[in-house]
Amino acid sequence: MGAVERTAGDEGGPWAEVGPDAARRLLIAAVDAFAERGYHATTTRDIAGRAGMSPAALYIHYRTKEELLHRISRIGHEKALEILRAAADRPGSAAERLADAVRSFVRWHAAQTTTARVVQYELDALGGEARAEIMALRRRTDAVIRDLIEDGARGGEFDVHDVEGTTLAVLSLCVDVARWFNAAGRRTPDEVGALYADLVLRMVGAKG
Amino acid sequence: MGAVERTAGDEGGPWAEVGPDAARRLLIAAVDAFAERGYHATTTRDIAGRAGMSPAALYIHYRTKEELLHRISRIGHEKALEILRAAADRPGSAAERLADAVRSFVRWHAAQTTTARVVQYELDALGGEARAEIMALRRRTDAVIRDLIEDGARGGEFDVHDVEGTTLAVLSLCVDVARWFNAAGRRTPDEVGALYADLVLRMVGAKG
Repeated sequence: MGAVERTAGDEGGPWAEVGPDAARRLLIAAVDAFAERGYHATTTRDIAGRAGMSPAALYIHYRTKEELLHRISRIGHEKALEILRAAADRPGSAAERLADAVRSFVRWHAAQTTTARVVQYELDALGGEARAEIMALRRRTDAVIRDLIEDGARGGEFDVHDVEGTTLAVLSLCVDVARWFNAAGRRTPDEVGALYADLVLRMVGAKG
Repeated sequence: MGAVERTAGDEGGPWAEVGPDAARRLLIAAVDAFAERGYHATTTRDIAGRAGMSPAALYIHYRTKEELLHRISRIGHEKALEILRAAADRPGSAAERLADAVRSFVRWHAAQTTTARVVQYELDALGGEARAEIMALRRRTDAVIRDLIEDGARGGEFDVHDVEGTTLAVLSLCVDVARWFNAAGRRTPDEVGALYADLVLRMVGAKG
């Protein structure tokens, strides 16, 4: 499952940009270890071992376990934001762009469940500046969906009672795909994406 | 936050039924420890310490750490099922009953975020019979929502393309409240419940 998961959804996986090779292998090992045992139960020794390296080799690339989590979280959040933005910036009606954004966002969460779970559930382990940086990325992600919903509501395409609350619910629905999605299950990421795009258009009261 | 969380949503909290007192204190300590550090990073010694007891005193009530998680998970799932059933069994149209079920389910997840997170995110740590028992409870929970949606669709109250998929999405939306809900945030559990009941009626294409 690991290999499929890492390459589906975006070309080369979310870690393609991480270099050198040893740094990338350590990051992937950390994602797997955090997902399996939790951040607090994982040691840098565990991570190095999974990557077939010594603890000393790990410290060449990452000073601490928190730096690994921060790096994973930043890359995960940046990818998610990039995917949403690409959909939102395409030409089309608010409904088309919102449906497209939801489809892409859902596909990404379905294809990267392990990474998405680590990123979402271990957020509390980040402190100080690392946390502030991630929270800023999350606010930018939220804003993409909110702006799309606002656009549609202002233009009369949507009928929304509570833009802020509907934005929260749409994002929550998409993010939670990472919790329940099972690559061996009945639905493909594309099918879940299509289903959710339809449900979200209903949530915003899209006309037509 | 702990005290509020444990008593809001249902009278006496989800642990009121657990006795004797020492067994209940240990269970509450385990929920807090699992939520804070994760199941795998928590030892029975940590749990006993949080409850102000010795490890030997813990073993009088629970044989293993897994038994504690199993107990927490079973009580959490039983409560959630009970809440959904109570709403579904009331008289009224399918729309009224579904809205009521969503309101109650959301309020419970918002009021019990710590328990709900442990129950949802540490499911993989349960094995064998314990896991099978919890999965059976989850299927019964899913069935309550599915039956409500099916009722409404059959009676012409709802317009649903995919009953199975819509059921999945409605449950997912409610469960994820436990991830993002913040007792110090802008919305109360009741407000989120009302918002979500409205959004879910839109998802099922409720008429009127």
